[in-house]
Amino acid sequence: MIVMGIDPGLATLGYGIVNYEYNHFNVIEYGAIITPSDMCLADRLREIYDEMGDLIDKYRPDAFAIEELFFNKNAKTAIVIGEARGVAIVAAAKKNVEVYEYTPLQVKQAVVGYGRAEKLQVQLMVKALLNLREVPKPDDVADALAVAICHCHSTGTYSNYNFGV
Amino acid sequence: MIVMGIDPGLATLGYGIVNYEYNHFNVIEYGAIITPSDMCLADRLREIYDEMGDLIDKYRPDAFAIEELFFNKNAKTAIVIGEARGVAIVAAAKKNVEVYEYTPLQVKQAVVGYGRAEKLQVQLMVKALLNLREVPKPDDVADALAVAICHCHSTGTYSNYNFGV
Repeated sequence: MIVMGIDPGLATLGYGIVNYEYNHFNVIEYGAIITPSDMCLADRLREIYDEMGDLIDKYRPDAFAIEELFFNKNAKTAIVIGEARGVAIVAAAKKNVEVYEYTPLQVKQAVVGYGRAEKLQVQLMVKALLNLREVPKPDDVADALAVAICHCHSTGTYSNYNFGV
Repeated sequence: MIVMGIDPGLATLGYGIVNYEYNHFNVIEYGAIITPSDMCLADRLREIYDEMGDLIDKYRPDAFAIEELFFNKNAKTAIVIGEARGVAIVAAAKKNVEVYEYTPLQVKQAVVGYGRAEKLQVQLMVKALLNLREVPKPDDVADALAVAICHCHSTGTYSNYNFGV
């Protein structure tokens, strides 16, 4: 099963694509879609949409996993992250890839084994599970791989629910 | 000049399409894209993307105008509105329609004549300027028409800047 995980952001959108078979992970690709702040919003969102589409065409993931966002106290930042998140999700949906959402608690529980794990613990587990030499940088990439791992570990008990808005 | 204005939302996305020539407005179309809360997020966003694309194909606007969002104190609501907003913008960008953003102040100033106008004043001016029998409902539709009017009145002094995030 090929899973694409995403950590959404307008300036930096982390992605990680893993293959999970017989309880074993293989990393296929990871990185970040970067859009410069001197580009207008519409062009940045189009860039994210197009690069997401190219990655999906190239690696043909069976599932797309993304973290739910609760945390943000700054409504302006929340709107901008929401914009990038919405565009990433619609890019996957338009390619008919199933979209799954996980809470931060679910991601930590699935990756580290308990829901109150620290960020560094999550990153070290991502490195260990994926047999990487180093923790992937920037953090957005490690977070994207973590949510991909979460989906692999959670299949069968995944959350794919609605916002009810 | 044909202008499409949008008031973004996940459950209700208002749109208004107007033609502006020689300081005169003609309403072409207005309405709302509604997505039910029992549909999953990915499907709702795809619905918005597809319906936006159909409207753009049908009416071929020269410009796409959308309000900037500051107001929202609830970060979760802000993220969801951001998702719908991002998807609407990318739908326009993918059809090569220029995207313009206006602050609520700019919209009120352009429609009513001063930036502190009440919502009802804006709605009554939308009705008057567009020669409508009634204020369009729901409010999202009137707001979408207002931002379209704002773009028409502002052309030449429009804002199309970046978020700098």
